[in-house]
Amino acid sequence: MEPRIEVGILGATGMVGQHFIKFLQGHPWFDVRWLGASDRSAGKKYRDATKWHLQGVMPDKEADLVVEECKPNNAPRLLFSAMDSSVATEIERAFAQAGHIIVSNSKNHRMDRDVPLLVPEINPDHLKIVPLQQRHRPWKGQIVTNPNCATVSLVMGLAPLKPFGIAQVIASTFQAISGAGYPGVPSMDINANVIPFIGGEEEKMEQETQKILGDFAGDHIHPLHAKVSAHCNRVPVVDGHLVTISVKLSAQPSQTDLMCAFDEFTGVPQQRALPSAPARPVTYMLQNDRPQPRQDAERDRGMAAFVGRLRACPVLDYKFVALTHNTIRGAAGAAVLNAELMHSEGMLD
Amino acid sequence: MEPRIEVGILGATGMVGQHFIKFLQGHPWFDVRWLGASDRSAGKKYRDATKWHLQGVMPDKEADLVVEECKPNNAPRLLFSAMDSSVATEIERAFAQAGHIIVSNSKNHRMDRDVPLLVPEINPDHLKIVPLQQRHRPWKGQIVTNPNCATVSLVMGLAPLKPFGIAQVIASTFQAISGAGYPGVPSMDINANVIPFIGGEEEKMEQETQKILGDFAGDHIHPLHAKVSAHCNRVPVVDGHLVTISVKLSAQPSQTDLMCAFDEFTGVPQQRALPSAPARPVTYMLQNDRPQPRQDAERDRGMAAFVGRLRACPVLDYKFVALTHNTIRGAAGAAVLNAELMHSEGMLD
Amino acid sequence: MEPRIEVGILGATGMVGQHFIKFLQGHPWFDVRWLGASDRSAGKKYRDATKWHLQGVMPDKEADLVVEECKPNNAPRLLFSAMDSSVATEIERAFAQAGHIIVSNSKNHRMDRDVPLLVPEINPDHLKIVPLQQRHRPWKGQIVTNPNCATVSLVMGLAPLKPFGIAQVIASTFQAISGAGYPGVPSMDINANVIPFIGGEEEKMEQETQKILGDFAGDHIHPLHAKVSAHCNRVPVVDGHLVTISVKLSAQPSQTDLMCAFDEFTGVPQQRALPSAPARPVTYMLQNDRPQPRQDAERDRGMAAFVGRLRACPVLDYKFVALTHNTIRGAAGAAVLNAELMHSEGMLD
Amino acid sequence: MEPRIEVGILGATGMVGQHFIKFLQGHPWFDVRWLGASDRSAGKKYRDATKWHLQGVMPDKEADLVVEECKPNNAPRLLFSAMDSSVATEIERAFAQAGHIIVSNSKNHRMDRDVPLLVPEINPDHLKIVPLQQRHRPWKGQIVTNPNCATVSLVMGLAPLKPFGIAQVIASTFQAISGAGYPGVPSMDINANVIPFIGGEEEKMEQETQKILGDFAGDHIHPLHAKVSAHCNRVPVVDGHLVTISVKLSAQPSQTDLMCAFDEFTGVPQQRALPSAPARPVTYMLQNDRPQPRQDAERDRGMAAFVGRLRACPVLDYKFVALTHNTIRGAAGAAVLNAELMHSEGMLD
Repeated sequence: MEPRIEVGILGATGMVGQHFIKFLQGHPWFDVRWLGASDRSAGKKYRDATKWHLQGVMPDKEADLVVEECKPNNAPRLLFSAMDSSVATEIERAFAQAGHIIVSNSKNHRMDRDVPLLVPEINPDHLKIVPLQQRHRPWKGQIVTNPNCATVSLVMGLAPLKPFGIAQVIASTFQAISGAGYPGVPSMDINANVIPFIGGEEEKMEQETQKILGDFAGDHIHPLHAKVSAHCNRVPVVDGHLVTISVKLSAQPSQTDLMCAFDEFTGVPQQRALPSAPARPVTYMLQNDRPQPRQDAERDRGMAAFVGRLRACPVLDYKFVALTHNTIRGAAGAAVLNAELMHSEGMLD
Repeated sequence: MEPRIEVGILGATGMVGQHFIKFLQGHPWFDVRWLGASDRSAGKKYRDATKWHLQGVMPDKEADLVVEECKPNNAPRLLFSAMDSSVATEIERAFAQAGHIIVSNSKNHRMDRDVPLLVPEINPDHLKIVPLQQRHRPWKGQIVTNPNCATVSLVMGLAPLKPFGIAQVIASTFQAISGAGYPGVPSMDINANVIPFIGGEEEKMEQETQKILGDFAGDHIHPLHAKVSAHCNRVPVVDGHLVTISVKLSAQPSQTDLMCAFDEFTGVPQQRALPSAPARPVTYMLQNDRPQPRQDAERDRGMAAFVGRLRACPVLDYKFVALTHNTIRGAAGAAVLNAELMHSEGMLD
Repeated sequence: MEPRIEVGILGATGMVGQHFIKFLQGHPWFDVRWLGASDRSAGKKYRDATKWHLQGVMPDKEADLVVEECKPNNAPRLLFSAMDSSVATEIERAFAQAGHIIVSNSKNHRMDRDVPLLVPEINPDHLKIVPLQQRHRPWKGQIVTNPNCATVSLVMGLAPLKPFGIAQVIASTFQAISGAGYPGVPSMDINANVIPFIGGEEEKMEQETQKILGDFAGDHIHPLHAKVSAHCNRVPVVDGHLVTISVKLSAQPSQTDLMCAFDEFTGVPQQRALPSAPARPVTYMLQNDRPQPRQDAERDRGMAAFVGRLRACPVLDYKFVALTHNTIRGAAGAAVLNAELMHSEGMLD
Repeated sequence: MEPRIEVGILGATGMVGQHFIKFLQGHPWFDVRWLGASDRSAGKKYRDATKWHLQGVMPDKEADLVVEECKPNNAPRLLFSAMDSSVATEIERAFAQAGHIIVSNSKNHRMDRDVPLLVPEINPDHLKIVPLQQRHRPWKGQIVTNPNCATVSLVMGLAPLKPFGIAQVIASTFQAISGAGYPGVPSMDINANVIPFIGGEEEKMEQETQKILGDFAGDHIHPLHAKVSAHCNRVPVVDGHLVTISVKLSAQPSQTDLMCAFDEFTGVPQQRALPSAPARPVTYMLQNDRPQPRQDAERDRGMAAFVGRLRACPVLDYKFVALTHNTIRGAAGAAVLNAELMHSEGMLD
């Protein structure tokens, strides 16, 4: 067995950082050896710097690591970034300049022209844009990003339909509280309530969807030419972003065509059997009241998307429901799968 | 002061029946004197026949009434119907044949050609269709209905926009558990979860909206010529149906035009100061995260609608959020306001 | 009609401050004319300084008041204190030294020897300790406090039993999230969960209960000689602290004796018909599954306590359940009732 | 590898039956081959007879089994019973008379003099009472039971303290909705609420605790001579029964003695490494706000108990908190561990 690749986590003490640690437990390729956080935490053992917010307790190995400042110095070459967006831009760049590979969950670089917004089953070829970074930026490193957590639910539901020509999309989200991190949403705001607003989220869903479903065009990503409209809402659910979707398609597929497209959808991660790849990226559920966040989000280690309730839409062509686990497929697991794809491409060698 | 009008409640022991009793406490015009329910309950005192599910405790006066069978006999002329749809059709007809006026919350007759689906601020003239009942049906009585609770949230949000030509509507609902009655939704299904399905609800929302916003055309109601698509979902909220709405308008109003239209919207109930009419049927909230069910549904006795977050929709023209209290404005309060309108028209004399 | 008494609120922008404003709407005696808060808010209009967290929207009158620094200067003589305990000690003393009457919800002075911990139905004579403040402290003002919100549920349940000799009490609480203020409890911590810990709460419940149920003894309050043990827990409920209570009594009353004691319990606020006094301070509910927070806490404007499920305890003598509304009877409403009692005693003249 | 033992499930279509199926997936000893349910379901495939209520979807193997009537006929010798208590008494006896071994989660036979109420870590020797069944009852079979789900949380917390002489116990429960089965608790009753009553539960907790912690005395189980008082309450939590406990001990152990007792507690299932035995039956958590149902109940496959917050009780001696997973350690998992113990004793040969 090959030695595992040492990895570090930028922003390790926050909620997403904790998800990285949890998701990487027992990973066959990546070994967490370095944890970076703010100056306030640096120098302390991780167990003393961090209140663990996830189910169960902090893993012992990471608990004993001493938290480092977020400076390149002794960090491993491969870093997962879970940094707050208020600081991510500069720190990620500093690491890229020092030659590191940053697989980031932060929003900061997602829409940069030369940065892939990667979903390995959907747009693995977008990785080809990375060399532009090294050509035009003052760095030898790389930055690769994954989408916003609500965007992931939408694009996993839409990607199988791309062959039919996605023209218009209206999506309304039911987003879990874990998507806001910790402390995140005050319970007084969301207990037995709905908040019909999440700052900046609708813009992200609309733009990121176009980029992710777009095409690599040599020196840029050509965005999908589709109109996308998002209504973003918070609901009192712990994990799992559900989204209702109405879609107009330029081809005229039958309902059966679409159901087959969902079930047959697969990609490079499945072909290469990447360690975190779900057996099937998208599963169409036949029960008329599924998928549901509490019942389905955690299936397949939280890496699969579930869709259901496909039916005709009186306004656009079809409507249906999609669900993914927001902190796994929509955050930590997404970035890890991105790194696995990069490794399988030889980009980590 | 005029003597109050005696009224009865068909289906008085169920959840909606309880809401009628609660809402009519202290009503200046209507005095609950007769409670009808299934044979199982008939003959018992209401307090013994009924487990009270609403906040607080059962009102003493009604608690002491003896529950009657749902047969015309000694019932008052005016009856509010809260009957389960499995029995409502026949029983409501029997009462109409016996000359009673049925103001019904049941779905059974809503889409009948000669039955108004009434929202007093929106379509008071639809009452003019009632005489057709007496012409073509074997009865001297009347049946008037109010919409499904989710439909109410949608039409209260749309009605102010009718002057701009509603062409297409896509709506996604966040419906409270109280909408399913009692015992209704099992807690195991909805605790910290979303159920993306409510049986029959989408069809009702789509069809009822067209009828309510349609025009009285002499011998029928001409439905609004607009495409309407609904996604219906249950969320763990106690009261208040929130709905996200994207709408295409045939005129090209500005955002300010629409905000004014919301705020200036008013109707006959306000002009006549009907007892249950809210001061303003629709209020546009300027806060960017409102309306919210737990914060806003109960305002103005649960009879007002709240809208917010009006903004451009990249697919249709505009998108926004609407909220009404589903068991009040969407059920018992709706029927009572209907009866008040009828009384102000002299239809109860 | 007498002119109303001008009052101010210290800590007006926080959650408890907002509850004071809401509870005092339309109060016949007290007129909110002055709002004090931190330097950060001072100088702004209340509407600009404050995000309103309660149901509905901010009252217009208060919204237009300019927030003041928490310094005596131009403040009214009577002040309700909703200040955070981190600053309450010094600020309340400064106001007392300047001659103000502070009716405080803060914990800071509750256990002071010369400060009443007042529940008007239970220990109105504890007000007699106030002159000691003016004798031994460098002030002409007064400080009067109300209990911790969880303590209130317990003492309202126990007070009717005091004649039977309360010897031992074990209480376990089910405390609503609103008790922690805003932002308070993160939803990630409490959604579909229980937190079996609230910092400092158990000590407060144990000590405050002994003081409240104690006797005025000339120059001090003699605490009730009873052992009290509290288990404090947070549950995902919006408003209403429920507590299960086992109690050992030195007399040997029958179950009927206790039920009568609950129902017959009354006090000075009822005799004097103080504006915020509930008709009955404690109501025994006969239904076997009541009281419940969502169904009962808001009854009687949130000022009444509800008890139920009285039965024999195999370890101590009896066990039962008690409930009060934590932000009303347990905070803002409690302080207002205290001020009403003081006014009826001529202490505000 | 030995062939696996064929097992059946009585009451397979209900919620507990589903938990048996889920928990037994991949079990090394037991192989589910027979599913019994009511006549209504008999003859159908399990997938058609059952709406699956647990996370994820129904396992394929069981889905294809044809449901049988609950009659001995062709059933395997070992049967797990998940039957509703309204029918369990007669059916379980019929199977016992036909020679079957019934490992039951139903309450019906728990308090029978010759039936063990088994918790393998606590009272494995109670199995010695089983031969009395065969001596005095008209059967060759056996009935062995596990406790009520709330009792399990209490006895797992108390058992480590038995050496110190348990004299008095007052417990207040925070019980999850899954404990009531399906459809179980209506969401209208429990959403954002607490129900301070669960029918029959307090009596069960009080009596079962004495039996479980009692001693085998040749021809009967001598119950623990301790007074036990339970307050049972439902809270809006999905899985995990938490209980606050005050206890009086006849010895005078230090707090450290008790913490050691919790952590060192172990039993036969651990010594024999039974397949479903948790590594440690009871874990003392040092964090001051743990255990919590959503964070801890599922750890160790739901088979471990967690305790915390040990501190002095001003009334009895000590107080603390205990938690177990109610549908696993408190139901299906409990019964499976019982059967594993029986197998390790040679009772299934």
